[in-house]
Amino acid sequence: MIRKLPGFNRLLSATLIGASVTSVAAPVDMTDRRARGEAALTQITGGPGQAVVDSLKDTAPELADWILSFAYGDVFARPGLDHCTRELATVAALTALGNAQPQLKVHIGGALNVGCTPEAVVDVILQMTVYAGFPSALNGITAAREVFAARGISVKS
Amino acid sequence: MIRKLPGFNRLLSATLIGASVTSVAAPVDMTDRRARGEAALTQITGGPGQAVVDSLKDTAPELADWILSFAYGDVFARPGLDHCTRELATVAALTALGNAQPQLKVHIGGALNVGCTPEAVVDVILQMTVYAGFPSALNGITAAREVFAARGISVKS
Amino acid sequence: MIRKLPGFNRLLSATLIGASVTSVAAPVDMTDRRARGEAALTQITGGPGQAVVDSLKDTAPELADWILSFAYGDVFARPGLDHCTRELATVAALTALGNAQPQLKVHIGGALNVGCTPEAVVDVILQMTVYAGFPSALNGITAAREVFAARGISVKS
Amino acid sequence: MIRKLPGFNRLLSATLIGASVTSVAAPVDMTDRRARGEAALTQITGGPGQAVVDSLKDTAPELADWILSFAYGDVFARPGLDHCTRELATVAALTALGNAQPQLKVHIGGALNVGCTPEAVVDVILQMTVYAGFPSALNGITAAREVFAARGISVKS
Amino acid sequence: MIRKLPGFNRLLSATLIGASVTSVAAPVDMTDRRARGEAALTQITGGPGQAVVDSLKDTAPELADWILSFAYGDVFARPGLDHCTRELATVAALTALGNAQPQLKVHIGGALNVGCTPEAVVDVILQMTVYAGFPSALNGITAAREVFAARGISVKS
Amino acid sequence: MIRKLPGFNRLLSATLIGASVTSVAAPVDMTDRRARGEAALTQITGGPGQAVVDSLKDTAPELADWILSFAYGDVFARPGLDHCTRELATVAALTALGNAQPQLKVHIGGALNVGCTPEAVVDVILQMTVYAGFPSALNGITAAREVFAARGISVKS
Repeated sequence: MIRKLPGFNRLLSATLIGASVTSVAAPVDMTDRRARGEAALTQITGGPGQAVVDSLKDTAPELADWILSFAYGDVFARPGLDHCTRELATVAALTALGNAQPQLKVHIGGALNVGCTPEAVVDVILQMTVYAGFPSALNGITAAREVFAARGISVKS
Repeated sequence: MIRKLPGFNRLLSATLIGASVTSVAAPVDMTDRRARGEAALTQITGGPGQAVVDSLKDTAPELADWILSFAYGDVFARPGLDHCTRELATVAALTALGNAQPQLKVHIGGALNVGCTPEAVVDVILQMTVYAGFPSALNGITAAREVFAARGISVKS
Repeated sequence: MIRKLPGFNRLLSATLIGASVTSVAAPVDMTDRRARGEAALTQITGGPGQAVVDSLKDTAPELADWILSFAYGDVFARPGLDHCTRELATVAALTALGNAQPQLKVHIGGALNVGCTPEAVVDVILQMTVYAGFPSALNGITAAREVFAARGISVKS
Repeated sequence: MIRKLPGFNRLLSATLIGASVTSVAAPVDMTDRRARGEAALTQITGGPGQAVVDSLKDTAPELADWILSFAYGDVFARPGLDHCTRELATVAALTALGNAQPQLKVHIGGALNVGCTPEAVVDVILQMTVYAGFPSALNGITAAREVFAARGISVKS
Repeated sequence: MIRKLPGFNRLLSATLIGASVTSVAAPVDMTDRRARGEAALTQITGGPGQAVVDSLKDTAPELADWILSFAYGDVFARPGLDHCTRELATVAALTALGNAQPQLKVHIGGALNVGCTPEAVVDVILQMTVYAGFPSALNGITAAREVFAARGISVKS
Repeated sequence: MIRKLPGFNRLLSATLIGASVTSVAAPVDMTDRRARGEAALTQITGGPGQAVVDSLKDTAPELADWILSFAYGDVFARPGLDHCTRELATVAALTALGNAQPQLKVHIGGALNVGCTPEAVVDVILQMTVYAGFPSALNGITAAREVFAARGISVKS
């Protein structure tokens, strides 16, 4: 439940500093794609993202590797966008496509994890009425309601 | 229900102030859905958006009205998100859907109009490699390149 | 812009008359978008549509408003098409998109509510084999079978 | 399996009678899937549909056969829906999918050929704002405008 | 139009021979579209495909007929591709579309039935990360895992 | 993680041998993702694929890198499927999605480059009538016809 996210690198640095001062936590090697991706996955999606990766161990371990190294290590770790904007763009796209509800829920949770407000999540989903139609937006709101309920969040927009 | 809308109000105020000082321009009545939508359309999409609306006059004037009153007057004018985030979410969704290139170009231009950097636009499109695949992202970049070229923008990401 | 809406008005009148017999029912103000939309929603989707609207009260009341005022008040209330044709076109589109099963079921029910025959509903779904492929049509038939079963309808096409 | 097809047969008879007057047009053998499909294709899509079929002769003659025998001979020839409703449902689905503009234009023309009004075509496309979003509807209207212009039709809705 | 179908005929012959040995299985009349399709359906999808066809008996018997006569009798029975390649192409398409999970599972099973290895099925699904994005591939792997589990297959790729 | 890749290495070796005869082509370092991907891209898509990569240099060089390192270096270089099957699966998926014609043409060419017959390409596209509908298949055939014509290939299926 990372609330402020001034800069991804700064956060990771903070973690490294905070973690290493008195030692203990292994520092994240940000030049290592997979290590960088694991750090991003943990920060953004938390448990549910890790559960997806773990579930692939038997059937498709390469997919787990690509999620960590490519999706999170290469793409998400790019510095051009703050994490909240990235997650809102992801929520917009998955709501519009309308064929990936499990991933939509993970990223609604991810948006909250990186500091987006529930209202911003709802707003991005509502905007999809214009670009993908009301059924997509309705199913997006249903997903949001489930994620919010599981976290005890109530939204009065 | 309208909370704070600093950027949007400020921009509108600026328009009003800039336009009214020596009078003339009718002030935008923000309680009028269509007037509010016209102001937002002008601000966000500029000429290309207006051209779309005008092109509908003969065949589908209701659609022009719905674009102004509903899409821009109701949805875009909601205060929960700043306009750049809205436009980036729109660019993400249209890139992912991949079946609306003319509208994608209008909103890439719209993102720039409301202050998003070209780099942020590119970043959001690149992120769609993960959520909608490489062909969608490639066609999104092609759209961005055309919009950037028409504005003399060069991106070195 | 609402010109004449003979069938729609007649149906509403019939409903009102049928429902009130000797008195009372408040007449629908057809110049009020939301009132007009509520009347259309009730007539077309009945309970399930109302349930969707009600479910949005907490998380996304604007979406409920847009469904009533825009989707039903502006779009569905247009007089150019009879309600059965509108519902069949909706069933066609949702079957083809294949990513909105809950809404597809609501509109299969809606088609029946406004007087389409079950056979016509099945026929429109079957036609989607040609335009969207067999899986979409199969999943459409599954949705129809569930709606028909809940109403005790049996189809022998 | 084709039971009674009164409207369809009548239309075909009318065509044959109108075309042959005193003489000889070979009667369509309605028990022959392909002959039935060719008659339906001619009636519904006219020249553009035939051009598509002809264009397949070299590369994919089976697809030409399937269009005639399956799409038009089996599916379109079913008696459960009148041809205008079928064409409007097709226009709705292709507008919503948004990835088949050439076919959308053929069927907008087809809708007109079987007696739908231009206003009904526009109305069905406009309805897709609700089910597939504004970009799909906008691109549908663009297609309609092109087909209408080529036929000298002007719509004042 | 069915020219030579060596592999397909051989497989069917093998089945017939294997099944009849001392007795009498009726030979499949390969010139009969529906008989040919039933043989292909049985060979490729086995029980689950037959269950789908049976389920349509009441609501949409024509769809059952089209699945047998057109989808399997006309399309799948074409000799240009071996059955494993056809099934892998089908798995690729359904994974990419992402809106037909029941059919995706039937064809993952079908791929195994016609001799594709589980590893090839996984590989084709993984490739969809590139063409349709990670969520589609993830949901495809989930489908594969369920089919594999039901058959006691474990994959170590 | 690249285990054995006999066919792929052989093809690359053949290319190198054929190209260099008496001299010196630098051997491809198959443990280097990007080098491996460049070799695969060259082999599979030839000039058109390289042109896409080059076109990204200014606006989105990361996307060029991801195409080489991830799409071709990680995914395509996996040994579980021969290249022709991979390309046919790609053609199937892009035909079904119907929103990426430029990429579809590149991969129809790619299928031919890695030894698929034109008939197999046509067959995979035709199969999409069943899984994604006739318009998608028609637009796929149009793409194939263009690629075949540019190479002087005529297909008589």
